[in-house]
Amino acid sequence: MRTEPLLLTPGPLTTSLTVKQAMLRDWGSWDSDFNDITAAICEQLLQVAKAQETHVCVPLQGSGTFAVEATFATLLGQDSKTLVLMNGAYGQRAAKILERMGRDTVLLDMGDYLPPEPEEVARILQEDADITHVVLIHCETSSGILNPLEEIAKVVSEADCEFIIDSMSAFGALPIDARNLPFAALVSSANKCFEGVPGFGFAIIRKTLLQQCQGRCVSLSLDLYDQWQYMMKTGQWRFTPPTHVVAAFYQALQEYQQEGGQPARLARYQRNRDRLVAGMRRLGFDTLLKDHWLSPIIITFLSPDDPAFSFTSFYQAMKQRGVLIYPGKLTVVESFRLGCIGQLYDEEIDKVLSAVAESCQALGLSAQSTSSNTQPLTEAI
Amino acid sequence: MRTEPLLLTPGPLTTSLTVKQAMLRDWGSWDSDFNDITAAICEQLLQVAKAQETHVCVPLQGSGTFAVEATFATLLGQDSKTLVLMNGAYGQRAAKILERMGRDTVLLDMGDYLPPEPEEVARILQEDADITHVVLIHCETSSGILNPLEEIAKVVSEADCEFIIDSMSAFGALPIDARNLPFAALVSSANKCFEGVPGFGFAIIRKTLLQQCQGRCVSLSLDLYDQWQYMMKTGQWRFTPPTHVVAAFYQALQEYQQEGGQPARLARYQRNRDRLVAGMRRLGFDTLLKDHWLSPIIITFLSPDDPAFSFTSFYQAMKQRGVLIYPGKLTVVESFRLGCIGQLYDEEIDKVLSAVAESCQALGLSAQSTSSNTQPLTEAI
Repeated sequence: MRTEPLLLTPGPLTTSLTVKQAMLRDWGSWDSDFNDITAAICEQLLQVAKAQETHVCVPLQGSGTFAVEATFATLLGQDSKTLVLMNGAYGQRAAKILERMGRDTVLLDMGDYLPPEPEEVARILQEDADITHVVLIHCETSSGILNPLEEIAKVVSEADCEFIIDSMSAFGALPIDARNLPFAALVSSANKCFEGVPGFGFAIIRKTLLQQCQGRCVSLSLDLYDQWQYMMKTGQWRFTPPTHVVAAFYQALQEYQQEGGQPARLARYQRNRDRLVAGMRRLGFDTLLKDHWLSPIIITFLSPDDPAFSFTSFYQAMKQRGVLIYPGKLTVVESFRLGCIGQLYDEEIDKVLSAVAESCQALGLSAQSTSSNTQPLTEAI
Repeated sequence: MRTEPLLLTPGPLTTSLTVKQAMLRDWGSWDSDFNDITAAICEQLLQVAKAQETHVCVPLQGSGTFAVEATFATLLGQDSKTLVLMNGAYGQRAAKILERMGRDTVLLDMGDYLPPEPEEVARILQEDADITHVVLIHCETSSGILNPLEEIAKVVSEADCEFIIDSMSAFGALPIDARNLPFAALVSSANKCFEGVPGFGFAIIRKTLLQQCQGRCVSLSLDLYDQWQYMMKTGQWRFTPPTHVVAAFYQALQEYQQEGGQPARLARYQRNRDRLVAGMRRLGFDTLLKDHWLSPIIITFLSPDDPAFSFTSFYQAMKQRGVLIYPGKLTVVESFRLGCIGQLYDEEIDKVLSAVAESCQALGLSAQSTSSNTQPLTEAI
């Protein structure tokens, strides 16, 4: 029986009991049994990206942001210049990491929720021949937008630049095919679409590129070249791995395959999104984005323009009903977010929708009031 | 019933079932219930170090090494010069981190197992007024030596330098009293003497010092100033924490208090050490170090000088009997290590000793042969 709340969030998310039960034993982090798990995980992640022939998978302790920073710190030389495509908090964070590292950047800031246009990216790359790398957030969970990955990859490749994809919240659900999609590195983490628990991230890096990166990283902990080399030599992580989290991830990968891999996971998340959006619209809530841009990862809903509504009271009302929602991250309007990923099926989505209806009633919200401030924004895209 | 092997190691180690069961639920990493856990953990860790009045506790995702590097990167300015007291792999790693970061260092390398002499440290600090910081490994698990913490702290303080203690494998068991022991920072991790599972580390840093460190760290992920400030403002970790590991650590801390806190934990580990050393000596094995230097954390035993012995075959024989041992890390002689920490009591120690006796028999070792190469080394200290 489920005693914990449902997490309607982009990770940490609701995981299966069997994934959590995989943490009920201790592992020697240098033992061959554990090394086998690490090797199997890396191999399976490469398969999901169809990158076995071209890339290597390097896991790293810490949150996904650690893996993003490690990828930058390992791959980007002193004379690199990186175009960061920003439309939310994670693009901003990528830029901040590079700025701290002292790497040259060019920023294309689309604001809260507009996608970067491939034509504009092509123009920027054409006008500035010093740009060596381009960073894109695959699904920017700030708004929930699914950015145009393939189109951007194409113009980056045509400009002979290296493409780094922060696919933290999308990889595993959205299709990636390294045989057709040229990229230097793709970064993601354990607790997103693979439905593991948080504790490590990983980067899938083109092998011929990583081979050139020895000694480039000024951080020992974040050096993915060293991590990769050590793992190849010993089968072990360089420093103590989160053994239980890794074992849980291995179980999560088995459940991912049993469900049918990426296509099945995507189909379930899309079904969650569609059921959630339809239900919320019936309750009078509008989405920030038009249907075309709605990811199957997380959806931003606009807060009702009603004095009876505050995020804090709505959050508490939902929490009392066993559902944890996510605050909005827009700078312009009040909003909140609901995730589509994790161990959520029709039953859980319906439970969420009931909790929303009850919470609205408890707060004294009228259904009509919820959509009153939304028209300009949904028309913006 | 225990199905996993006993881990005779300095962490990851054998944890209680109840600690692991604390991982059987999912947490929202921004929810107040989880924030309360984080706050309680930091408060309790400060209490263990008797540092509530003077220091703050900043947890960090990743392995203990991440926390060590983060402490250096946050506290040490460009013009710092750090004396690293080395007598094993962890001192060497501290030096390597500083070298990568481009920070000036002075190394006092005592080799594999000799302790740094306070008089020599005092002399070095007196002769080089540019030295600003001194780093000591509290228990150097390479050999298992317990370094002379109080004596070194005294000479560092007298030289007006800042003292950074890597107490990864000792804090929680060995007493620390910040009211009498002057230190800038003490670094440790979840999966050592507090008997949590691996996934984060923490630094206990003097507040007036950390307040001066804004913007110093070139790594966003490893910036402990930012982590501290964000946590004070929001109660949350800056980036996704390993929620399940944190919940397990909270449970581990409750069990630590129930056992009787630091004095009781130390007493149990000392009892484990004494029982283990006596039993191993009866079986013909000698310790690398004399009794005075044996830590209650991990013990290095010299490998028998017998062609029938190889670490690999001994490891496998022990593993078949449900015990995972740890390889040696000495450069001079063959050795292996057995840990005293984790959920080990008389019963488990006796099980280990039986497994050693059986494994020796299985490998065809004679008891006499085991001590033949040990005399010169045990006399060295």
